[in-house]
Amino acid sequence: MTPHGIINTPAFIFCGTKASIKSLTPEQVKEANTQVILANTYHLMLQPGSEVVAKLGGLHQFMQWDGPMLTDSGGFQIFSLGYGAVADEIKGRNRTAARPAGRSFRKITEEGALFRSYIDGSRHLLTPERSIEIQSELGADLVVVLDECTPFHVDKRYTERSMHLSHRWGLRSLKRFEQLNDGRQALYGIVQGGVYPDLREISCEFVSQQPFFGNAIGGSLGASKSQMYEVVQMAMQKLDRSRPTHLLGIGGIADIFAGVAEGIDTFDCVHPTRIARHGGALVSRELRDTPAREHLNLNNARYKLDNEPIDQNCGCYTCQNFSRGYLHHLLKAKEILATSLLTIHNVFFMNELMQRIREAIAQNALDKLAKRY
Amino acid sequence: MTPHGIINTPAFIFCGTKASIKSLTPEQVKEANTQVILANTYHLMLQPGSEVVAKLGGLHQFMQWDGPMLTDSGGFQIFSLGYGAVADEIKGRNRTAARPAGRSFRKITEEGALFRSYIDGSRHLLTPERSIEIQSELGADLVVVLDECTPFHVDKRYTERSMHLSHRWGLRSLKRFEQLNDGRQALYGIVQGGVYPDLREISCEFVSQQPFFGNAIGGSLGASKSQMYEVVQMAMQKLDRSRPTHLLGIGGIADIFAGVAEGIDTFDCVHPTRIARHGGALVSRELRDTPAREHLNLNNARYKLDNEPIDQNCGCYTCQNFSRGYLHHLLKAKEILATSLLTIHNVFFMNELMQRIREAIAQNALDKLAKRY
Repeated sequence: MTPHGIINTPAFIFCGTKASIKSLTPEQVKEANTQVILANTYHLMLQPGSEVVAKLGGLHQFMQWDGPMLTDSGGFQIFSLGYGAVADEIKGRNRTAARPAGRSFRKITEEGALFRSYIDGSRHLLTPERSIEIQSELGADLVVVLDECTPFHVDKRYTERSMHLSHRWGLRSLKRFEQLNDGRQALYGIVQGGVYPDLREISCEFVSQQPFFGNAIGGSLGASKSQMYEVVQMAMQKLDRSRPTHLLGIGGIADIFAGVAEGIDTFDCVHPTRIARHGGALVSRELRDTPAREHLNLNNARYKLDNEPIDQNCGCYTCQNFSRGYLHHLLKAKEILATSLLTIHNVFFMNELMQRIREAIAQNALDKLAKRY
Repeated sequence: MTPHGIINTPAFIFCGTKASIKSLTPEQVKEANTQVILANTYHLMLQPGSEVVAKLGGLHQFMQWDGPMLTDSGGFQIFSLGYGAVADEIKGRNRTAARPAGRSFRKITEEGALFRSYIDGSRHLLTPERSIEIQSELGADLVVVLDECTPFHVDKRYTERSMHLSHRWGLRSLKRFEQLNDGRQALYGIVQGGVYPDLREISCEFVSQQPFFGNAIGGSLGASKSQMYEVVQMAMQKLDRSRPTHLLGIGGIADIFAGVAEGIDTFDCVHPTRIARHGGALVSRELRDTPAREHLNLNNARYKLDNEPIDQNCGCYTCQNFSRGYLHHLLKAKEILATSLLTIHNVFFMNELMQRIREAIAQNALDKLAKRY
């Protein structure tokens, strides 16, 4: 329950990074059954600036999204631009070499994170207080504390120090939040601790003891999928389950089934909308080209003369109207409409997946559903 | 009246070059009150190929447009790629220097036009018969004869020879059309003759004497707007006015008023959809920044904090929902949605303009309306 409506969980939160779900109008996002979207504090603080969004009525009014919204703290992008490969590592993708920190200017102190704008190179200091102030100006329903997002390649010692820093930042975020909140926003604390069970336990206790509205599981979740599932399982055993729990930045179909089985309520990830821009259409198991991939690649020449929709059982606007052959043509011709139509499909697909998961949970049939996907 | 519905004239025909109105679903195109769209034979014959479109059900089915459609002959793009500046010249834009012909491989013979694909450099021969065959496979309601599209910088002698060649191609197009047509397509002849009144007169007579469904005015319309208006006036005095007449490639607001005053029924131009992709929003006179331009440039920093819609009296989805400040942000952030929202506005704007023109003609008040625009 948010000021902009109820969220039925488990739910998927789509990325509207710069106050737009890429290539879709909010009407199209809604028609694809979307409940909740997010925007990124890092991008919006730099362009157009949270004060501009506030003057134009706040995020909901600005982008004309009247459903629930979340903003992140801005931390993830600062650290991922700094470390380079952090996003891959957090998501359990096994890269061969750890990259050195500091590809772009970035400095972490007790006070906050100093970084350069990706747009014009200007210097900015993001403190926990400032992150909350910006998120207050943006006006999303769900907001998040600032944390340091550590990559996989740092050692336990660094992870521990970083976790404690994140806890102190969490308290400062909470304090500023309580000063500013008019009852229309709700704050999530973030669990850190990397892949170390003892650290995760300490962090879970910290988050549970503070009066956060929700829990978010962040930081490095390991170098492989199985390690990620272990970390999530570990955290979910220790967290206050009466609060909603969000798993940050995870959105593969298999990952969602694993997370839901542990009790995760919400997920977010650029994956469904990003692969759409590259010609990827999410499909259930029986339609896949290869078991290794959860989507069809419509760039493939095999679809040139294919008069079938992506999925004839799918109820989305794209599948109700267009052939794979047409989508293949749009991709080859570099037509923007390819992105819109594939994004519509993938958003609809994820929302339908989450609805089926909710139904399966009610019927105690999650395993059976997981096999279809 | 076409197999896909009635066209109320005067009407504007929007460019769906590669079987897509750039960035919009056909549903959005329809919601913006569009009656008729076109696709370009040149682009579609090369990608995906007319035989592919035919196998996937023809253009209407392929792109899910259920209203009337036009295809051009393919000639314009071959010649404009060849001459380089031909598009500007045909539209009466005064460029300083004429460019030499033959920037890309292109050869005109009695048989047809030999050219290289803009995609892969492969050689293609487009004959009048082949153009009609391709347009038959594509399946638009309205189709056009192949002509040679001469640029402004050629002399009268070349223009005259070219005109006669276009007439012979017109007859061959007509013959092939009559062999192939099942009653679901209608053919337009094209008036050539450049800026020379005596040649235009000969060409008008030729077109009027042949059993074409409609007239199209093509070729060079002069080096200035006033010369263009003269050429159009000249042609309209000689043409069979009982047939619908299309003015090829012209779509500025002032040009439309001038054309309509002479009796032109339909116009087409990439202008409204192209400027949308560059941040331009068409507006009526009282909202313009400068009298020299028929649109607002929303990239301008003055719109950053502007909470008004493009036009508060406009009924389009974009103006009903979004501020100039949001559109400015989307442009700065290079979000695809900027293109979609501005295209929706410009398409709606042009359709509303044409509707008002139709009403003004009925009330004999065209001059009064023209002053507002």
